[in-house]
Amino acid sequence: MSDYASFIKDGLTKLSLPSEPKNLYDPLRYFLNIGGKRTRPTLLLMAHKTIDSNWQESINQALAIELFHNFTLIHDDIMDNAFVRRGVPTVHEKWNRDIAILSGDVLMVKAYQSLLKNAKSPIDFIELFNQTAIEVCDGQQMDMDFEDREDVTIPQYMEMIRLKTAVLLACALKIGALNGGADNHMAQHFYDFGIYLGLGFQLQDDYLDSFGDEASFGKQIGGDILNDKKTFLSIKLRDKIGLNAFNDLCGIDNEDEKISAVKSAYIGHGLDQAIIEEVNRYHEKSLSILNKIETNHPKDELLALSSKLMIRTN
Amino acid sequence: MSDYASFIKDGLTKLSLPSEPKNLYDPLRYFLNIGGKRTRPTLLLMAHKTIDSNWQESINQALAIELFHNFTLIHDDIMDNAFVRRGVPTVHEKWNRDIAILSGDVLMVKAYQSLLKNAKSPIDFIELFNQTAIEVCDGQQMDMDFEDREDVTIPQYMEMIRLKTAVLLACALKIGALNGGADNHMAQHFYDFGIYLGLGFQLQDDYLDSFGDEASFGKQIGGDILNDKKTFLSIKLRDKIGLNAFNDLCGIDNEDEKISAVKSAYIGHGLDQAIIEEVNRYHEKSLSILNKIETNHPKDELLALSSKLMIRTN
Repeated sequence: MSDYASFIKDGLTKLSLPSEPKNLYDPLRYFLNIGGKRTRPTLLLMAHKTIDSNWQESINQALAIELFHNFTLIHDDIMDNAFVRRGVPTVHEKWNRDIAILSGDVLMVKAYQSLLKNAKSPIDFIELFNQTAIEVCDGQQMDMDFEDREDVTIPQYMEMIRLKTAVLLACALKIGALNGGADNHMAQHFYDFGIYLGLGFQLQDDYLDSFGDEASFGKQIGGDILNDKKTFLSIKLRDKIGLNAFNDLCGIDNEDEKISAVKSAYIGHGLDQAIIEEVNRYHEKSLSILNKIETNHPKDELLALSSKLMIRTN
Repeated sequence: MSDYASFIKDGLTKLSLPSEPKNLYDPLRYFLNIGGKRTRPTLLLMAHKTIDSNWQESINQALAIELFHNFTLIHDDIMDNAFVRRGVPTVHEKWNRDIAILSGDVLMVKAYQSLLKNAKSPIDFIELFNQTAIEVCDGQQMDMDFEDREDVTIPQYMEMIRLKTAVLLACALKIGALNGGADNHMAQHFYDFGIYLGLGFQLQDDYLDSFGDEASFGKQIGGDILNDKKTFLSIKLRDKIGLNAFNDLCGIDNEDEKISAVKSAYIGHGLDQAIIEEVNRYHEKSLSILNKIETNHPKDELLALSSKLMIRTN
């Protein structure tokens, strides 16, 4: 585990959530404890360190971003009827729907509480966090709306993943930079870096969902295909072969046959390569912004993490 | 409609929620438009006016409290499986569960946004609001936990309604006073006033649910009895007649007979009078705190509203 991850884990433990009501706080302790990559708070701490060496001072802001992210996961799991996350039962599955709604709600408030602690510009942080939270909700709603649509375009899809995924990474990076002492101009570079990083990260996730290695990816390959999710791959394929042929593929009853047929079509039309090229394009864009950031502190950790996020296999 | 109510209505209209995603913001426009008594924002504006005549300056804080209250209603309606509120379908009934969860989430963020606008002490407001929001969630969880318990005591019940209902009224009053220029000592009086007001208000609600006039109360009389809700009345009755006799009453199949038998038992044991005496006791406590507040501005509106809330019939 990296220094950052263990520091974040330690911070989550020290949150000392109340013991009562048990049915409200036990689910939070459980969910925060099942782990995850802690990508967002790590980015926040790294951004601080790129400006100023006392990166530990941003722990409360890092925890705020992680708490908010977990709030979205608890509520998303209800909406997705997901019963398992990271190999264990989701909150609404282990407790019930009402407890999952309410413990998600209280987690969002806990995020606001943490954001204010030892904050260099508390009001700016709250305002950025508000805007980001609204955008994440907008993105989640767009994602749900896409389920019933057959005419989603690539620009619409990219806007959805910008909102649902990228803005939270960007917000984390900007807050870390500001709390480390960056001025607004420099902090905006961190934000923009986060947007490109987030877009590449999500496209890589789309790629892995179809072409990843089940053991290292940690979830079933082909989930997006089985659920007829709108992704970069599926939208491109529909545009290549037309809606009727696309719907024929989606209509294959046997699950293994469906996954195999859709993947063959992706490969046949070069989309497995096209999406990797797209990820690389966003990777390069993110690096060119990182280059613009003038600092005396090394950027190697941010560089390494952004490469890892876009060239990852899990 | 009072000056306050029309000013609040106007403020809600001017919020200008985005048009897209429609499925996220249409439910909010709908729900904020079905009205309600606007008790909490009115209290906030009145508290400001008790300190300073420019009460209109607190409109954004008043809206924040109303938005937060509506967020809790949207999520509570899911948890209560309530299909109708104020005579129209609830959000999860008119749209669906997922949209109700997500539009509630975004409404909470909107409340934080509004709270910061033209705020005299933005950080203090956010901190009080965070604490209040957490307490409201705690109270809602306690209320849900009470459903499965037969040993709830009156002090536990009073603590639950303090959290679920009273602290939000208290928070509204304190923020209004602070934004009007009150010092912390005086603002705390407003807070304490709000706690007693809230406790009396909720007990009056319990009374009306069993003994109100259906036409003026606006909902079915006896709902709490049919749902075996833990209330001041039902806990007192259980203590008077013992759990077995109490469970016999709760077990009556026919709905009208059950309501009638439980109400007769309440009256037979003097509980209809006992709860009114309790409401009056909190009313007097709230007035004695209001008396402590030294201001050159009249308190008559706050006095009138608090009397109306505790001696109301709807």
